[in-house]
Amino acid sequence: MDDGISHNNNNNQILCPIKPIRCIVKLGGAAITCKNEIEKMNEESLEKVSSQLRQAMISGLSSVKICGMDWSKRPGNSEASPTVDDFSDQSLLDSDRFIVVHGAGSFGHFQASKSGVHKGGLNQPLVKAGFVATRISVTTLNLEIVRALAREGIPSIGMSPFSCGWLTCERNVASADVSMVAKAIDSGFVPVLHGDAVLDEAQDCTILSGDVIIRHLAAQLKPEYVVFLITVAAHDTTGGMVTKIWEAAMIAKLGIDVYIVKAATDDSLRALRGELKGNNVPEEWLGTVIRLLR
Amino acid sequence: MDDGISHNNNNNQILCPIKPIRCIVKLGGAAITCKNEIEKMNEESLEKVSSQLRQAMISGLSSVKICGMDWSKRPGNSEASPTVDDFSDQSLLDSDRFIVVHGAGSFGHFQASKSGVHKGGLNQPLVKAGFVATRISVTTLNLEIVRALAREGIPSIGMSPFSCGWLTCERNVASADVSMVAKAIDSGFVPVLHGDAVLDEAQDCTILSGDVIIRHLAAQLKPEYVVFLITVAAHDTTGGMVTKIWEAAMIAKLGIDVYIVKAATDDSLRALRGELKGNNVPEEWLGTVIRLLR
Repeated sequence: MDDGISHNNNNNQILCPIKPIRCIVKLGGAAITCKNEIEKMNEESLEKVSSQLRQAMISGLSSVKICGMDWSKRPGNSEASPTVDDFSDQSLLDSDRFIVVHGAGSFGHFQASKSGVHKGGLNQPLVKAGFVATRISVTTLNLEIVRALAREGIPSIGMSPFSCGWLTCERNVASADVSMVAKAIDSGFVPVLHGDAVLDEAQDCTILSGDVIIRHLAAQLKPEYVVFLITVAAHDTTGGMVTKIWEAAMIAKLGIDVYIVKAATDDSLRALRGELKGNNVPEEWLGTVIRLLR
Repeated sequence: MDDGISHNNNNNQILCPIKPIRCIVKLGGAAITCKNEIEKMNEESLEKVSSQLRQAMISGLSSVKICGMDWSKRPGNSEASPTVDDFSDQSLLDSDRFIVVHGAGSFGHFQASKSGVHKGGLNQPLVKAGFVATRISVTTLNLEIVRALAREGIPSIGMSPFSCGWLTCERNVASADVSMVAKAIDSGFVPVLHGDAVLDEAQDCTILSGDVIIRHLAAQLKPEYVVFLITVAAHDTTGGMVTKIWEAAMIAKLGIDVYIVKAATDDSLRALRGELKGNNVPEEWLGTVIRLLR
């Protein structure tokens, strides 16, 4: 194997991609959906976040026309399909080795909590149906986010943790094939993962949160920094801020800087661009840095 | 290896599921979409096909109320959300170990052919964008099919070949992690795969057709029989009938019966139910059987 990825047979001990990952971004569910209305996107916020991600990923781009990569029909969208010429002046926009992971927000929670998927028990018809319903809802959201990023010219690729072989045991990650994520990055794509319903070796099934996915990816792929894009919310349904801070601290323990910052602000753009690396956090920056003291 | 598929040692040595697979079904793209209109479902046909699949998978069910598993909001659908009681009288509907693989029909083809994804070359911006656009389109279709099956009470789980680690080399399957497909079946789900844009070790990327996926799954998982649900079409964009018959013949060589039959007919229902197994093909049955003579 000369691709820099060590392979083996149990899917779990991979693997650095060829070049290091720059950043893993968590899009908080509350930042991209309307939390109080079932399965409703916050289109405005998602559009801003996508635009900032593009600015952070693709540098020196201000003069280049954006060529969207979602060529699908959309309700109300009469945009002409792209032509070969549109792409002829695109220098190869290297999308700079980002991974995006998003939460569920108002997608999935209803289905999961109604059926108790997190507690397991696939031999109960309600849990089994809830598992199917939860996956339908979270993959619907994933597709919307992949499309929003693609419209900004980000080469986004949806990758469902269930399909990628993520399994838990007593709700901790038991195995996860990160090799396809690494291959997608090495091919110039931006993988987009999400909190998902997954199989659990001890209790049949559970919910794997986006925050746990990020911690696992960070441990395996060692990004330069991790950014959590959040809204300032009074409460948060997936374990809340305490869990998030704990997961962030576990990442920081690996020596990786973590920034927690309000989505779609000047502060989030600076964090995404990596301007806070080193000891370079300016006075006026609003957000939380979690970093291992050396 | 005599099956024309080159195997290698990573990701590829699993994996018989605990019990044998009963059937792999190919939903031809033309049978579930309107081929002449970009990204348009053939809702009526899909509904009939889904209903037949349910009848074939879940036996002795006529008296049991169907409990849908798509609990998402849908345009024009005001169906009340399910209650726990709805599921209390559901005997555990064992969905009888089916796999569904679908083609792209009028989804994906436009994006793929416009950009030449099948010929590879991800260093060209147009090909890279086309890869992203193709995956968006085919995963949109996959989600629609998963939802249609779930509405019929089939515990369907979308699994994208790209995410599952399917890779090609010179357009032949080079590796494919079938273990998650097997695990999903062992957990009582019906995996739903699709023709997809994938990475190729020789030419960067290509299109992996649903028919090639079926041949590979059949070789690995040895189902009792394979059913191709088709429409009678004058022409077919993915290589056409000749390729399909060739792929079917390769499956039959493994000793697995293959039935090619018009979708949503009495004949397709009989094929799906396995009524044609052995030498049990009645005179009046319309369709094609491809079977190894012994």
